[in-house]
Amino acid sequence: MRDVFHHELDQLADRLVEMTGLVGTAMASATRALLDVDLQLAESVIAADAQVDLLQRALDDRAVELLARQQPVATDLRVVVTTLRMSASLERMGDLARHVAQLARLRFPHRAVPDDVAPVFAQMGEVCERLALKAGRVIATRDLEVAAEVERDDDELDLLHREMFTTLTAPSWNHSAEATVDVTLASRYYERFGDHAVSVARRVMFLVTGEEAPAATV
Amino acid sequence: MRDVFHHELDQLADRLVEMTGLVGTAMASATRALLDVDLQLAESVIAADAQVDLLQRALDDRAVELLARQQPVATDLRVVVTTLRMSASLERMGDLARHVAQLARLRFPHRAVPDDVAPVFAQMGEVCERLALKAGRVIATRDLEVAAEVERDDDELDLLHREMFTTLTAPSWNHSAEATVDVTLASRYYERFGDHAVSVARRVMFLVTGEEAPAATV
Repeated sequence: MRDVFHHELDQLADRLVEMTGLVGTAMASATRALLDVDLQLAESVIAADAQVDLLQRALDDRAVELLARQQPVATDLRVVVTTLRMSASLERMGDLARHVAQLARLRFPHRAVPDDVAPVFAQMGEVCERLALKAGRVIATRDLEVAAEVERDDDELDLLHREMFTTLTAPSWNHSAEATVDVTLASRYYERFGDHAVSVARRVMFLVTGEEAPAATV
Repeated sequence: MRDVFHHELDQLADRLVEMTGLVGTAMASATRALLDVDLQLAESVIAADAQVDLLQRALDDRAVELLARQQPVATDLRVVVTTLRMSASLERMGDLARHVAQLARLRFPHRAVPDDVAPVFAQMGEVCERLALKAGRVIATRDLEVAAEVERDDDELDLLHREMFTTLTAPSWNHSAEATVDVTLASRYYERFGDHAVSVARRVMFLVTGEEAPAATV
């Protein structure tokens, strides 16, 4: 049986996993709202983000309280500090899903993204949902193989992001500047969502292997 | 005379202030590189960002070491945790300055942003430099009045950001989709830079007043 401290650490990890579920679902729903021009769904994603923020705050408070009460050192201390960093990434992923939903709402009843790029956004949404799910699995299992999958999925997302820019700057792109702005920002939101998922996975890997993670997401 | 722990906290604060100086200068130089189509300056901003990353890592290591060695509680603990959060924001501000420089490099020998919006970017660069400087003063002095100025300066930045989008979507905007993409992304980089400066100022204010800062930058 684990001691009280490690039991509390496990609880913090459970909360982080819960956050990955929420932000993954949020990005999937935001994508549907964007592509199906679903105002009600967009509103619900925007409202639900407050829940993610509350969860983060509660998690951070518990982590800091744990530091004060248990005074962990060495690996235990690193785990708590890493928890704080991961919760910040996850909170930001929630913001990015909200931004996609806000874009859908802003252009309603029109669709913010033209037909040509809708399938790419659909794919980006799928990859992001998968990334959040896998980031949760990395936190829960500390499985290096899943962490490697997160990196690969994010590479796929980066490819889609670049493909989007190729489409935007091709001679065949004949949409308004407004559509260009919207597609640019939306694509950037998905790309950043993926970066944060990678950051979460790398932080867990750092705890497992002791190998330095890159300073931050790029 | 202050005790060892508080002396070390002061040193961490000095490092944070140093980081604000570096990222403010980086954004000012990146803006000059962007507007003057100065490849060498762009390269130097990109190279210098590694320095900010190193500084952040060193600062974070010392903060975690301080937690382990001194086992602070209550306010002292909150200060150290807040230091970790502020260093993350500052590191990200460095990334954003680098992104602007990378955009300048990508389009060299052409200028990434058309003449119509160059003055707005010049203003955004000035406001960002000021924001970084003031964030540093907030950290060094914990002056509530300077923190309020940070909020106001960021409002000014948000206005410029919105003005940019109005220009981009006006009928008079007759530039390529590539230019539209570049201006959209660059403007977003400046806006995010400001958000992080606000986040830093709010975290300091939270330490001073005990009033909850918003969960994160929006």
